[in-house]
Amino acid sequence: MNYKLIGRILGKIMIMEGVLMLAPLFVSFIYKEQVDSKIAFLVPILLLAVLGGALQFTKPKRTSLYQKEGFALVALVWIVMTLFGAVPFVISKDIPNYIDACFEMMSGFTTTGASIVTDITALSHSILFWRSFSHWIGGMGILVFVLIFIPESNDGSSMHLLRAESPGPQVGKIVSKMKVTTRILYLIYLCLTVLEVIILMFDKPIVGYENEKFFFSLLTSFGSAGTGGFGFIPNSMELFSPFSQYVISIFLILFGCNFALYYLILIGKIKDVFRSEEFKTYALITVSSIALIFGSLYSRLEALGYTVEEAFRHSLFQVASLMTTTGYTTSDFNLWPMLAKTVLVLLMFMGAMAGSTAGGIKTSRIVIAVKGSYVNIRKLINPRYVPKVKIEGKILEEKTTNDVFSFITLYLFVLLIVVLVLSFDPVNGTTTVISSDFGQYEVKHDFFTNFSASLSCLSNIGPGFEAVGPYASFAGYSWFSKIILTFTMLIGRLEILPVIILFTPRTWKKI
Amino acid sequence: MNYKLIGRILGKIMIMEGVLMLAPLFVSFIYKEQVDSKIAFLVPILLLAVLGGALQFTKPKRTSLYQKEGFALVALVWIVMTLFGAVPFVISKDIPNYIDACFEMMSGFTTTGASIVTDITALSHSILFWRSFSHWIGGMGILVFVLIFIPESNDGSSMHLLRAESPGPQVGKIVSKMKVTTRILYLIYLCLTVLEVIILMFDKPIVGYENEKFFFSLLTSFGSAGTGGFGFIPNSMELFSPFSQYVISIFLILFGCNFALYYLILIGKIKDVFRSEEFKTYALITVSSIALIFGSLYSRLEALGYTVEEAFRHSLFQVASLMTTTGYTTSDFNLWPMLAKTVLVLLMFMGAMAGSTAGGIKTSRIVIAVKGSYVNIRKLINPRYVPKVKIEGKILEEKTTNDVFSFITLYLFVLLIVVLVLSFDPVNGTTTVISSDFGQYEVKHDFFTNFSASLSCLSNIGPGFEAVGPYASFAGYSWFSKIILTFTMLIGRLEILPVIILFTPRTWKKI
Repeated sequence: MNYKLIGRILGKIMIMEGVLMLAPLFVSFIYKEQVDSKIAFLVPILLLAVLGGALQFTKPKRTSLYQKEGFALVALVWIVMTLFGAVPFVISKDIPNYIDACFEMMSGFTTTGASIVTDITALSHSILFWRSFSHWIGGMGILVFVLIFIPESNDGSSMHLLRAESPGPQVGKIVSKMKVTTRILYLIYLCLTVLEVIILMFDKPIVGYENEKFFFSLLTSFGSAGTGGFGFIPNSMELFSPFSQYVISIFLILFGCNFALYYLILIGKIKDVFRSEEFKTYALITVSSIALIFGSLYSRLEALGYTVEEAFRHSLFQVASLMTTTGYTTSDFNLWPMLAKTVLVLLMFMGAMAGSTAGGIKTSRIVIAVKGSYVNIRKLINPRYVPKVKIEGKILEEKTTNDVFSFITLYLFVLLIVVLVLSFDPVNGTTTVISSDFGQYEVKHDFFTNFSASLSCLSNIGPGFEAVGPYASFAGYSWFSKIILTFTMLIGRLEILPVIILFTPRTWKKI
Repeated sequence: MNYKLIGRILGKIMIMEGVLMLAPLFVSFIYKEQVDSKIAFLVPILLLAVLGGALQFTKPKRTSLYQKEGFALVALVWIVMTLFGAVPFVISKDIPNYIDACFEMMSGFTTTGASIVTDITALSHSILFWRSFSHWIGGMGILVFVLIFIPESNDGSSMHLLRAESPGPQVGKIVSKMKVTTRILYLIYLCLTVLEVIILMFDKPIVGYENEKFFFSLLTSFGSAGTGGFGFIPNSMELFSPFSQYVISIFLILFGCNFALYYLILIGKIKDVFRSEEFKTYALITVSSIALIFGSLYSRLEALGYTVEEAFRHSLFQVASLMTTTGYTTSDFNLWPMLAKTVLVLLMFMGAMAGSTAGGIKTSRIVIAVKGSYVNIRKLINPRYVPKVKIEGKILEEKTTNDVFSFITLYLFVLLIVVLVLSFDPVNGTTTVISSDFGQYEVKHDFFTNFSASLSCLSNIGPGFEAVGPYASFAGYSWFSKIILTFTMLIGRLEILPVIILFTPRTWKKI
């Protein structure tokens, strides 16, 4: 193992995290918060600077990373960032328990958005900012970002790191140089975020939060750009105006697209966008999910107390939010009809496009799995069949298909193991009172709660159903379950393998 | 397509089904049932004899089957058998609706054991016999059985049929000739069944059913040998004595073993049994599941009202029953603690060993998937790694692993699609009153109901949870959902591909 280079890059990331933490510190000054709030960020900033700086004194002999080193480094980076990123919550006493704080921070960086905070109004501006900002940082991947500034890493190593950190079955460079690719992607990310902030500024402020318009627009955009979904006022996005809800829905769908498509638009190849099979599938699934859910809500309009427009808006918003694995909510989908809920569960499995900031299995893997199964069946029907099935214009290779099948199998295994672990929690069988836009009702912490909690964390969504539904939190789980769910979020974000490789003893042996 | 040979074999199967139906007709005479009961069986027997006989006049030019023909034939045979096998239920008016009757019959042949009968005491002896007997027929596979008597089929075709009908990732002949292999397997099956009947005869009769001892022993054994699980008195196996419950548990575990292991014992290679990795895994999972569930029940002994012995017995019985995908019950596991329920759900995914009469993904596939994932991770850690991982003494081939990953992915897809289809059912959201050994309580037909119903049918188990729990039935579903679940059982029993191939238009085109 190239410990020295790993240490050096890790140190750089730590310094970068310290720099990023200056932003919430700045927020703390703007809102004239108490000294505690400032200390909360100053302490980890200093720690990160000193430790990260110290790691820069290592002199690596080899300036490249093997694949396994890349994978292990990526998982390590995310864990270290979470451990330090959680410190402000504890010092500011907003989340006094360190395990809870780590859960919240990992939920932020992995863009899950699952929260253990039960009273969101008690959090200070700087802490709210840091939570939502972490979505934006984690969305595109911190390590990839840092690569732009690392002189010693060569393109091969960067590719390993990008492969480990980026969502989706394949990683393509959109231009030949890795660093240029990364810069373009980040620029698109930044521009879309800024655009969302600007458009949201056109809305009237939320009643009761008249002075927060810019702050909320910023936080909303962080959460949607990273497809994270942390709320910052009670009831997530319920209090937002229909205008804002529509704007957010559209931006969520945009952030669920493969960013390479925007590059294609930039260079004028708009036709190629509509040729992308993953895009067409994504669009088709989005539209049909909205139609199914709208139909389901429409058939019970009176019982739900929605107008037709509300039924459509909530359908659009919830599909956009759960498919992109964001987790913002505008209404309590926990009480929706079964068809609507089931469609949402299926979207939670799938997630959005590869190369976006979303979690889940990804649309492209579903497309590959379906096509791969088709090839396998054709081969059974005619053993002499030579597959000519294409994906995105290229012949679908057997290795690609097999990797996808293997990934989905692992995904299912991880999901079921986490469900099993959660079933040990003493919270099971207890009841919780939920207050939502449909009024108060009791839910039991049952199998569906654990199942949706595990799926929600693994796919980096945020809310689940029933006792971890959109108007509830993960606070009820024991510390042990929270640690497991924290790792589940990481496993989901890094798509399983990097985390396994980090914790495999063989990784650390000499080959 | 070799339509003529397919027709000829199908005809033979139909005749065979007619012959098998003589058994319930005989039962009808013994119990001096009304004329209706006899007509109920006589009509389909005559139909099957005439139609099956007519099909024998075809003269196939080619005496062998291609793989695709074998797959399609197997799926076709099971559908035809169900369509005819359902007739007695309708004529005898025990299940007047033909769709319901087909559900019940498919549930019987596929050894699922899911029932739409709400009052089991209303069924006649002959009908109860036919239901349970269908488990025994379907357990080992009817087609394979008929192969013994088909002179025109060569060993290659038989292999295709066996591969399509037998559960598990690989099919091995235990002796060189296919027909001899089949005969040995059936003999083992028969002997174990007879042995169970004999041992159950040693028990005292059930209070209120003093004259039914032999009849019940027979039906119980049919249900356990085929790992089917149809009950024939109210509350499944709850009224059976502890002695019987222990005996049944042990036989269930035995019927969940790969039958090739019994052949090894017969020829004196007992050591090889304990060398089988699948057997070791099966044993390990059985023991640890019992331990987990017993621990879970033990911690709430008073709340559940069990004695320690009862807690152990119910743990043993329920693990044996659900892992082997039988579905007999001795207590209402619906009200068990979450840990116990979750372990049962995981067992419902897995099922027992390949080469047994059980459904589910199968232990061997789980072993292969885990080992295959290990190999994939080793390759990532060291790209020069040459896999030497073995399964049952042979190097684990990449093709085997990939087939398993592909199968598990398809399994998940089918499961989720069925859950989606069930979510359209108007029954969703309604409540049902359940009367079990824990008293009366209400359950809502919610997501877990549909999820467990789908999984239960796909894995050929029978009961699910909540509104399709052990003390409930599938009667609440609409006719459309019942048709879908009927096909789900078939898809599960034949392990997906044969059913897809039957319904793929390309299968019927000339190559």
